[in-house]
Amino acid sequence: MEPRVSLITLGVRDVARARAFYVDGLGWAPVNEVPGEVVFLQVGHGLLLSLWRRADLLEEAGPGIHEGHHGPEPVTPVALAHNVGSPAEVDDVLASALAAGGSVVVHAQVRAWGGYSGYFADPDGFRWEVAHNPGLVVSDDGRVTFVAAEPDPGAW
Amino acid sequence: MEPRVSLITLGVRDVARARAFYVDGLGWAPVNEVPGEVVFLQVGHGLLLSLWRRADLLEEAGPGIHEGHHGPEPVTPVALAHNVGSPAEVDDVLASALAAGGSVVVHAQVRAWGGYSGYFADPDGFRWEVAHNPGLVVSDDGRVTFVAAEPDPGAW
Repeated sequence: MEPRVSLITLGVRDVARARAFYVDGLGWAPVNEVPGEVVFLQVGHGLLLSLWRRADLLEEAGPGIHEGHHGPEPVTPVALAHNVGSPAEVDDVLASALAAGGSVVVHAQVRAWGGYSGYFADPDGFRWEVAHNPGLVVSDDGRVTFVAAEPDPGAW
Repeated sequence: MEPRVSLITLGVRDVARARAFYVDGLGWAPVNEVPGEVVFLQVGHGLLLSLWRRADLLEEAGPGIHEGHHGPEPVTPVALAHNVGSPAEVDDVLASALAAGGSVVVHAQVRAWGGYSGYFADPDGFRWEVAHNPGLVVSDDGRVTFVAAEPDPGAW
């Protein structure tokens, strides 16, 4: 697994409120958004910050309770994403995270947004999504754009 | 405030355990580290992932309890850092975050590591550190290195 973060997702309780702060308040322009659900902002070379409904993130990112050092703990409402070039690479990276001592909390699956992803937890329970997202393109200068995904079932 | 994340800090309960996963397990090479306290890994163009003792992060990042939508909530053990070029810019960015509807939870101050930083919380309580760190240099190709900081009290 290469050392790379593609997205930082913050699970927010109210997307409109978070948008008012980051977009209207700080003046950051959304790269893409679904009103009331999620807002994507570019915060670095090939790097997005995603403001996503907390309940949706916690539902997608695996069991709501992580067995911590000191007993059960709620999952932290943050996920880091590591994007790769193909569904097969997603499976390979999840396997390498498991071999490294992580736990695969959500097995890789085809996603409604047109890609394929799964989640692993590091030893503290922090979630990493390993994703192939053909609809998210990073140009050479690091700019990230969303393109209409063309579902290719054959790829899975 | 420009849209930029310079560091992602995960507050981990056991730095050696987290290091065993990321460094020994995944094979990511540390850029810098203080054994048992913190490990820095490069995870993108100009972007570091920091594995820091959770108690230290929560102590530095402001009051341990955030007044959330649904009553008091513990602070999420994660912080995003936004690095700028001077102490004056730190103050300016904290002021703009406050004007945007955030709250400044830790006023900017000179840090033991040779820089100057403060923290604000977004509407969900997520912490952002705004920092001037003269010891952290990002080269044109995005590689981040730590240099010996030369304290310059005059800069503050």
